[in-house]
Amino acid sequence: MSFINDNFLLQNKYAEELYHGHAKTMPIIDYHNHLEPDRLANDHRFENMTRAWLAGDHYKWRAMRTLGIDEKYITGASSDNEKFRKWAEAVPYLVRNPLYHWTHLELQRYFGVTELLSAKNAKKIYEETSSQLQQKSHSALGLLQQMNVEVLCTTDDPIDDLRFHQKIRKNNLQPNVLPTFRPDKAYAVEDQTIYLRYLEKLANASETNIVCYADLISALKKRIAHFHQNDCRLADHGLEQLQYFEFNTFDIEKIFKRILSKKSLKIEEIRYFKFETLIHLCREYHEREWAQQFHLGALRNNNERMLGQLGPDSGFDSIGDFQQAHPLGKFLNLLDSTNQLAKTLLYNLNPSQNEVFATMIGNFNDGSVRGKMQYGSGWWYLDQLDGMEKQINALSNMGVLSCFVGMLTDSRSLLSFPRHEYFRRLLCNIFGSDMAKGLLPKDMGHIGKIVQDICYNNAKVYFDF
Amino acid sequence: MSFINDNFLLQNKYAEELYHGHAKTMPIIDYHNHLEPDRLANDHRFENMTRAWLAGDHYKWRAMRTLGIDEKYITGASSDNEKFRKWAEAVPYLVRNPLYHWTHLELQRYFGVTELLSAKNAKKIYEETSSQLQQKSHSALGLLQQMNVEVLCTTDDPIDDLRFHQKIRKNNLQPNVLPTFRPDKAYAVEDQTIYLRYLEKLANASETNIVCYADLISALKKRIAHFHQNDCRLADHGLEQLQYFEFNTFDIEKIFKRILSKKSLKIEEIRYFKFETLIHLCREYHEREWAQQFHLGALRNNNERMLGQLGPDSGFDSIGDFQQAHPLGKFLNLLDSTNQLAKTLLYNLNPSQNEVFATMIGNFNDGSVRGKMQYGSGWWYLDQLDGMEKQINALSNMGVLSCFVGMLTDSRSLLSFPRHEYFRRLLCNIFGSDMAKGLLPKDMGHIGKIVQDICYNNAKVYFDF
Amino acid sequence: MSFINDNFLLQNKYAEELYHGHAKTMPIIDYHNHLEPDRLANDHRFENMTRAWLAGDHYKWRAMRTLGIDEKYITGASSDNEKFRKWAEAVPYLVRNPLYHWTHLELQRYFGVTELLSAKNAKKIYEETSSQLQQKSHSALGLLQQMNVEVLCTTDDPIDDLRFHQKIRKNNLQPNVLPTFRPDKAYAVEDQTIYLRYLEKLANASETNIVCYADLISALKKRIAHFHQNDCRLADHGLEQLQYFEFNTFDIEKIFKRILSKKSLKIEEIRYFKFETLIHLCREYHEREWAQQFHLGALRNNNERMLGQLGPDSGFDSIGDFQQAHPLGKFLNLLDSTNQLAKTLLYNLNPSQNEVFATMIGNFNDGSVRGKMQYGSGWWYLDQLDGMEKQINALSNMGVLSCFVGMLTDSRSLLSFPRHEYFRRLLCNIFGSDMAKGLLPKDMGHIGKIVQDICYNNAKVYFDF
Repeated sequence: MSFINDNFLLQNKYAEELYHGHAKTMPIIDYHNHLEPDRLANDHRFENMTRAWLAGDHYKWRAMRTLGIDEKYITGASSDNEKFRKWAEAVPYLVRNPLYHWTHLELQRYFGVTELLSAKNAKKIYEETSSQLQQKSHSALGLLQQMNVEVLCTTDDPIDDLRFHQKIRKNNLQPNVLPTFRPDKAYAVEDQTIYLRYLEKLANASETNIVCYADLISALKKRIAHFHQNDCRLADHGLEQLQYFEFNTFDIEKIFKRILSKKSLKIEEIRYFKFETLIHLCREYHEREWAQQFHLGALRNNNERMLGQLGPDSGFDSIGDFQQAHPLGKFLNLLDSTNQLAKTLLYNLNPSQNEVFATMIGNFNDGSVRGKMQYGSGWWYLDQLDGMEKQINALSNMGVLSCFVGMLTDSRSLLSFPRHEYFRRLLCNIFGSDMAKGLLPKDMGHIGKIVQDICYNNAKVYFDF
Repeated sequence: MSFINDNFLLQNKYAEELYHGHAKTMPIIDYHNHLEPDRLANDHRFENMTRAWLAGDHYKWRAMRTLGIDEKYITGASSDNEKFRKWAEAVPYLVRNPLYHWTHLELQRYFGVTELLSAKNAKKIYEETSSQLQQKSHSALGLLQQMNVEVLCTTDDPIDDLRFHQKIRKNNLQPNVLPTFRPDKAYAVEDQTIYLRYLEKLANASETNIVCYADLISALKKRIAHFHQNDCRLADHGLEQLQYFEFNTFDIEKIFKRILSKKSLKIEEIRYFKFETLIHLCREYHEREWAQQFHLGALRNNNERMLGQLGPDSGFDSIGDFQQAHPLGKFLNLLDSTNQLAKTLLYNLNPSQNEVFATMIGNFNDGSVRGKMQYGSGWWYLDQLDGMEKQINALSNMGVLSCFVGMLTDSRSLLSFPRHEYFRRLLCNIFGSDMAKGLLPKDMGHIGKIVQDICYNNAKVYFDF
Repeated sequence: MSFINDNFLLQNKYAEELYHGHAKTMPIIDYHNHLEPDRLANDHRFENMTRAWLAGDHYKWRAMRTLGIDEKYITGASSDNEKFRKWAEAVPYLVRNPLYHWTHLELQRYFGVTELLSAKNAKKIYEETSSQLQQKSHSALGLLQQMNVEVLCTTDDPIDDLRFHQKIRKNNLQPNVLPTFRPDKAYAVEDQTIYLRYLEKLANASETNIVCYADLISALKKRIAHFHQNDCRLADHGLEQLQYFEFNTFDIEKIFKRILSKKSLKIEEIRYFKFETLIHLCREYHEREWAQQFHLGALRNNNERMLGQLGPDSGFDSIGDFQQAHPLGKFLNLLDSTNQLAKTLLYNLNPSQNEVFATMIGNFNDGSVRGKMQYGSGWWYLDQLDGMEKQINALSNMGVLSCFVGMLTDSRSLLSFPRHEYFRRLLCNIFGSDMAKGLLPKDMGHIGKIVQDICYNNAKVYFDF
């Protein structure tokens, strides 16, 4: 029997029945990830397993560095073959890290490999998987179709022309691939050189002459319109914290002039700029009936030496301990006070804040939309058994689990979709364990329906893609 | 077999024996709740189940709003009948929320209803329970007597004349109902208009001409004397954080003059005012040998739109992430430094602070009173299986569980008293699980005694009502 | 069968096999504790069990005070006999506190006492254990040898001449006892009177005339050299938080002049002084290829009344809620940016920060040393079943558990070494439980090897004493 067997994560018969009888066959709506649209539009085939599996995966990189593996085998000049071998050597020492489960789940689901990866079988598995990757079943779209993905949402910059999304739509490719509006660069005024370069591109993309702040907002609204035309119904933002100010605490046009003339800003002015810009954007999302996402709490680029060497998103980010509750509440309240608060998903990176988030959403659920305010699934470092269970428990105890829109991969990899299976198994196990303990009635029909709602139906209704 | 059976929450035979053999029959001392004294004095009978069960219960309201139920069915103009039906429709979708357990426990204990509430049986259950509420056994006092409540403490403003408490005492009603001194409004100077109106009432109640800060303190001390005469032995305070300042950081008389003349205060002055006023009050509690309670960490009234519509305490409060440790330690130290620290109960709303609270109490336990400093039971959002277990575990690991004064309902509802049963069951399950795992000796006599102490004896001795 | 039996903490057969077959017989490297070197050098014998077990143990003191036991029986004038009796009376009421397990584990392992300690057998056990303490097997070194301790590291001030360490080395005593450089007093400029007194001693010890800041750094480097000559390879620091500043935010020589002339410092100057001094020290540790430890997050001396009476480290410290992530990341980055970041162990006192620490270390693991950055085992209040499990789980999910250097006692007592056994049992139970649940392959050889690495091999290689 292989390590990942039929009842993996399912600790009792109720859990098994919920998973096999209700969750397993539901399609996937992966409403947030970082897949590259061109690869989907062009139905990319990977040269080998290293390219498909290790390239860009900073989770794996961090683990390898911790094990004392030299950077040349990670992001460096070594051959794809060598890199795979080093990864395979590392895997047996990653027990209890989510990578250990993901690794073997992905090898099994996509490639039928049931052995535990190690130095011993590295060569064989590299060749076998690389060979399968040449087949149509293992092209970009093939991999997604294998996993029963119905819809997915990529993450796109406002300046993106979305031509790959258009191509996918035009060619009727499966799954349905939708863009997400992620305007983080539009308020990243902390680095003025990069920002001014970005403004130029935004001016071009929006065909707007941006000479004042009002122009910036107007340009962004044009891009929102363009995204909307291309079936985008979702925005996303990555921030340490949401800021809150009284409106007009600073003169935003003056701040913007300082930016254009490359004069330095005070920290509070930078924060205010982000705040006011977000408010304008959020009101526009509401107008368009989009949903808005906020990923809060990451402390990024901690290692400047490696940042200089490898750039961002290379495995040097960690969990911050920012205070969230007060400004988050005030920010949402400002939007709500004029009835301009869109459907909102809040993602939290620090598990000690789980209860702050789980109770915050309840403050703005007003009966207008079922589950209008969502406390998003365990994010990044929390996207593992313990982290997802804690998010589900906090949401259960302090909110209403049955309204939850469930799992998303947030991944850069086409091989990450078994994480939906992982989520479904642990979800079924949570309900099943409660049944076994007498904490829930053993009503398989009712609980099975709630499981299906969380796996698929709730997202289907909530996003209405 | 009904969902809530004899061994609900009890996962092994040790837990069962501890609960059925030791915990179950202990009387209840509910030393903190928000019941209305007039209803107790007048032995109120509820018109129907909606009035008894849904009115004022913002836990239920939040859950219904999250499920997308319109406000008219919650706090609005709908009939009691319709409101009950909407609640009944909601219940099956509240699985894993504490409301699900409470609902069925309360239906069963007070009304003998063992079916799971849903749209299907809503009408029948509404009629059955409403009918029982007309009986003497289900009057306000009848409901409490059913639950074996020996003493309860309401929460009362300093201006309260306590005539309902006097009536209860005079008529020798059961259970014994004692007042608690909750002076939050006496230092709520952030809203001066409301505060000045309050000062007038306080002046009347205390027959004191309040023209300076010293008068305010004098008026409050008179009210403490009045409460003391009416058998109050307990104070309570609701605050985001305890503040600490050097004494005389500000001139308190000058601050008070500014308040009287409606001149604005700086944030630090408002904080200082709270601080100094609390210190005066706490020293008086110590003088009177009262115990003092602090409920810390709530972030209130987050949704201003709904606050305007429904007022406070309507389900728009959540968990804050205030820093607690340093000012809390300094505040307690100031009182302790002159030997004026009363017996103290600290309630924490953010579970990530559990260990801060569980260790803070140890700093001021000085051998003078057994369990002098108490880390209070899981409060508000934490008053559920997971939250109470975490509080008990933190207290166990970092303090001395056997001294714990145990459960309180903190409830506005006369139907909440099965929460003591819920607490006792989970407490017995914790001890029983430890026994089953060999983490505790299987000494039922000794552990059973400790369970009884936590359920009743400790509170009896500690409060000495 | 005694309460602490062979399979204590081991909940299934996999756990049992891992512990008995792999962990149990590994030697102990106790790389951080507070044992007194003179007692080791002189192979001290304790007069009685109170002196060996209760003296200096503020964990026990806190528990006794909470139970309402008068200070005279704790740190006061009572006889050793009476003190033991009071402790014995307390023990049955400490169920679920780690003291309960430690107490019985220590009685059994060192003295063969398998009864549960209580008032009833206090006299007998006091006499039996006190008598054994007179034997050679129960001298300071005898106690350590019984526990299979191979190396231990004490905690020493820079001014220490290390003659006791030299004596131990010279006489070839077992176990090997190494010093640790703990320079906290060298930057404790918040109390200038005490600091100036300390500077004098440091000047003497280093034979340096300290008239400017550069002299201070030079003196400290000489002491590092002295420690290095005496086989020290490890530094340690106790701080609320690590500070971060731009270098030269303040003129450090001016600050130092103000200190020498007893002029007051601003809080930011005090913080800057600590920051810059730590940077100089840390660079020197890196130069020497030492490892550096940081114990972060304690809120100390909360009770000034008792501090005046008993001094520090008497049981009035608790867990703080300082923000850690940002300054900690910046501090480590500053050292890393010039390739001067030594091997580092971070200890965290607030479990809500576990994930911040567990992810922070990954930012500075660069492949140069296996497990270069360590998230240290549960510290102080977290050195118990729940706290250590949470640290192990956070490290597992967000780092690489297999690189962990494992347990240390951090203890002031020669009777604390069964805590290594306690750690090993719970570690084996974690792995065993995962196996039983199918979360890990049942590969006893491989997991057994990882267990041995965490118990001993990793520390052996990492510290290379």
